[in-house]
Parts: sequence; C-alpha cells; structure tokens
Amino acid sequence: MRILLIHAREFSFKAKSKAIADAEPPDSIPSEASAENALVVFTTVEDVDTQNIREVVEKAANDIIEVAEKVKASTIVVYPYAHLSRRLAPPKAGIEALKLLEEEIKKRAGDKYHVIRAPFGWYKEFRIHCYGHPLSELSRAYTPKASAKLQVEK
Amino acid sequence: MRILLIHAREFSFKAKSKAIADAEPPDSIPSEASAENALVVFTTVEDVDTQNIREVVEKAANDIIEVAEKVKASTIVVYPYAHLSRRLAPPKAGIEALKLLEEEIKKRAGDKYHVIRAPFGWYKEFRIHCYGHPLSELSRAYTPKASAKLQVEK
Ligand SMILES: [Mg+2]
Ligand SMILES: [Mg+2]
Repeated sequence: MRILLIHAREFSFKAKSKAIADAEPPDSIPSEASAENALVVFTTVEDVDTQNIREVVEKAANDIIEVAEKVKASTIVVYPYAHLSRRLAPPKAGIEALKLLEEEIKKRAGDKYHVIRAPFGWYKEFRIHCYGHPLSELSRAYTPKASAKLQVEK
Repeated sequence: MRILLIHAREFSFKAKSKAIADAEPPDSIPSEASAENALVVFTTVEDVDTQNIREVVEKAANDIIEVAEKVKASTIVVYPYAHLSRRLAPPKAGIEALKLLEEEIKKRAGDKYHVIRAPFGWYKEFRIHCYGHPLSELSRAYTPKASAKLQVEK
C-alpha cells in the first residue's frame, strides 16, 4: 500500500463520472465533500496487500494518526488514488481495504478528528491547497510481512 | 522516471524553505508562478534513469506533448516531486534531468504551450484544481533500455 499524505489548508472533491464498472455505488458514500486543515491521504491499495489487508491497514492507520497529531489537522480524508503504484489490487479488494482503513482511522481518531472517505473508482474533480511546511507532504509504503491467507500443506 | 500528469483549471506554487542542502539556488529559477488550463507534470527522477537520461527524458517529453494536445492545455508545468517512487536519483542528477525535460518539452512546444519549471529541493506551497474529466489524471513510467554509460571491457 502506498500513501501520500498532504496537509491541506483546503481540500474538496466531487465525483464526476465512473472510471471503472466496479465503481462504488453513488448512494453508498458522499459524492462530494470539502474540508479545511485536512490531512488528505491519497491511497493506492496494491495487489500484494491482499495477503494481509488488516496488517497493512493497521500500520497505515497508526502512521496517519501520528502525522495528524504532528501537523494538528482537524480532518482526515481517505482519498483513493490509482497513481502511487503500478501493481493495483483488484477493485473489490481495493474498496474493502479503503473501508477498513477508514474504520481503523475512526477508531484511533475518537472525537479528535473528523474522518471523510472519497468514493472509489470515480473520476473526481478536486482542489487542494497544500500548506508547504516541511511536514505537509509525506509518503509511506506498507507490505504484509505475515500472510493471512490459507496455507495449503504440500 | 515516474510522472503524474494532472490537467488543472488552476495551478500555483510558491517555494517556502529548502528541503535539502542541494536545493536549486533561489535566483536561478522563479520561486513562484501560477497558470490556468495547465498540464502539471509531477516528476520523480529515479536513480536508474541516470543510465540514459536523454532516452528517458525524450520519451517523457513526447508523451507530455501528446497529452497536452489531447486535453488542449495552454501551459505545461514541470514540477519536481519526491513521492512517485522510492528510488530517487541523487539531487544533482535530478536537477539536470528536470532541466533537460523542460528543454525537450520547450523544443516540442514551439509557440503552442507556455512552459514553466518549478524549483527542485524546496518545500513548496501549492494549489491545484484538477478538472476531473477522464484524461485529467494520468501516470507514466519510463526506464532506460539502452545504457549510455561507459561500458568497461572485462
Ligand atoms: Mg481511484
Ligand atoms: Mg522535490
């Protein structure tokens, strides 16, 4: 999983049209939102993540909260992004991973941060105003160490 | 080399502070700029590119012009970015590659596109408003096939 964390004075998005057949249904998640003082997490779920989604998501969620604390963001946005890796997970796995990431961030966020998730598989108009301070653009990568898949005895 | 091409209704940047010791000198290149209807090329120069910088840059420049034509951008922005790969070229090689990329884009642009390059190695505040149409976010990767380095006979 690759993430790019941008600390934004302002951020907004609006879904415009489906990019893939398996795009998240338009009624299951807000198609537009905006936030100020937001930690925007551009997130690419990779194929290898499917070996242990929970492990990858928990590591990412821990780091995201840590950065949110350092930069004193008030909102965290989980923003699906196809461009941080060339080895994307298939759409269904990608959506499940992003939902789990949102859930794990919310668990750690408590009342401290508002958490928003943007829809997967849609072309989206977006605006971002990156602060430009030394912690305003950070990238992280996660790979499962322990496989959670069934091991077939040979 | 990894590039992320974003077609932006508006884009602006402003250098704030040095991120590395070998940042481009502040007087050698504009520290801030803005553009409308811009094809913003977030560019990460990779270590492997140094095997044949010219080959990589020419392929990238060809693709960038092709996308600029498709989306009918009026400005092309070469924007150094550290986050599209984990295997970055060292700073001096990165700067040389980005200067060459700017040059090769300008050659192909003629009078049709205004070309801007943002400074390397600076934390930058930036604003971008991505159109969100189906060609407004594209990524490409390039690797040298032919090594241009001296081959030492064994
Ligand atoms: Mg996506
Ligand atoms: Mg940079």
